[in-house]
Amino acid sequence: MLGSNVPGNLNPHVSVDCVVFGFEFGKLDILLIERNMRFEGTEFKDLKLPGDLVRKDEDLDTAASRVLRELTGLDNIYLKQYSAIGSPGRLLKEPRDMVWLKSIGHPEEIVVTIAYYSLINIDQDNSASFTLQSNARWYPVSEVKELAFDHLAIVQQALHVLRTDLRVQPIAFELLPPKFTLRQLQQLYEVILGSSLDKRNFRKKVSNMPYVVPINEKQVDVSHKPARYYSFNRKKYQKTNKDSF
Amino acid sequence: MLGSNVPGNLNPHVSVDCVVFGFEFGKLDILLIERNMRFEGTEFKDLKLPGDLVRKDEDLDTAASRVLRELTGLDNIYLKQYSAIGSPGRLLKEPRDMVWLKSIGHPEEIVVTIAYYSLINIDQDNSASFTLQSNARWYPVSEVKELAFDHLAIVQQALHVLRTDLRVQPIAFELLPPKFTLRQLQQLYEVILGSSLDKRNFRKKVSNMPYVVPINEKQVDVSHKPARYYSFNRKKYQKTNKDSF
Repeated sequence: MLGSNVPGNLNPHVSVDCVVFGFEFGKLDILLIERNMRFEGTEFKDLKLPGDLVRKDEDLDTAASRVLRELTGLDNIYLKQYSAIGSPGRLLKEPRDMVWLKSIGHPEEIVVTIAYYSLINIDQDNSASFTLQSNARWYPVSEVKELAFDHLAIVQQALHVLRTDLRVQPIAFELLPPKFTLRQLQQLYEVILGSSLDKRNFRKKVSNMPYVVPINEKQVDVSHKPARYYSFNRKKYQKTNKDSF
Repeated sequence: MLGSNVPGNLNPHVSVDCVVFGFEFGKLDILLIERNMRFEGTEFKDLKLPGDLVRKDEDLDTAASRVLRELTGLDNIYLKQYSAIGSPGRLLKEPRDMVWLKSIGHPEEIVVTIAYYSLINIDQDNSASFTLQSNARWYPVSEVKELAFDHLAIVQQALHVLRTDLRVQPIAFELLPPKFTLRQLQQLYEVILGSSLDKRNFRKKVSNMPYVVPINEKQVDVSHKPARYYSFNRKKYQKTNKDSF
């Protein structure tokens, strides 16, 4: 068991990769880095996840926070570790990936990567409050079909975890403003789940969430019938959560 | 960003640690390994999680399956990766841990560990079907107060993840026999959640689970009033799950 310090043991570098979701009413984006390279005599461009090798004396979570800070200038973003990936050969599926790794002096042996996902409300934490690293841009999740290395699989897994978490954690309310309409709440679910929901069913389900509380205030200055505002009651959420199973 | 192949990058060994939960009606156990050592001239015994270093050319999940197979003789047990832990110094909090690592020829530098939890139904997969490695034994989760290294924190995190998963995945039904009574279902929830549940509330909640289906069969040869059997309908579960958010 543990202790067999033979040369056959894995001794990799470790990286963190961050799937940064950006939420705006109406769409879900992801933050990607453009990779420019020459491969077989031709210029080649593609996209990859933001990430970096973990440094000695650095905790995994610290490394992920550092990558996010360097990328966006933001601290204290919601950040969750959700997977470790270490399949042999995971970086070497495409010959161009090998060429690129060599060109940047990257260790060629296996890299175990620890995947994190993060959520940013683009509306609230808007461009005034954060500056993207020059080669980073937002792309609609639904349009991302190909990425470097195994990054597409890492994104798909993040999306799966995010959708599950949406059901069991108060993520929705971290992305909404302090007061929100039921229409906004439904839009948020639809954007993250990637499918439209029946309005009547949705409202029925929300009525079973005692922590979504109507407040005595309505929209103003809207062209349609002003909707009531709701707020999220964290105490009630914790109580409900504790009682449920 | 990625590519800074400087000596300051982490280059650890990687291990897997397995939190193996054993479920029996009435209690939740965990499989632990006894560690015997001499420390400061005295015999010292304590407990640790089963685990091993990951081998070269071995996938992380493969390594965890191997540890479980060596430990129990069982293949195809429910096994879920839930965390990667790589805090500097995580193995070196207790001087005796350092002494022990040295004694077994373990690399002294940092080891990043990938934590898995696993579920075994002790009643069903009983001693006839599996043989525990000689130094492994079941211990009631509620009585585990101290473990080697940071293993107690790893167990506590596993328990937290298991309890969350119980709410969003059909774990309960993997642990129950194909037909079960509502009393058995409640016991299972109580054992995993570590608290007792109100019977009326519980039955009300179960009545909102269209995938828990009464069958036309009752207990026989019981001293109390025979209870109806239920079964788990996976198709209905998948449909309900898909419709919910």
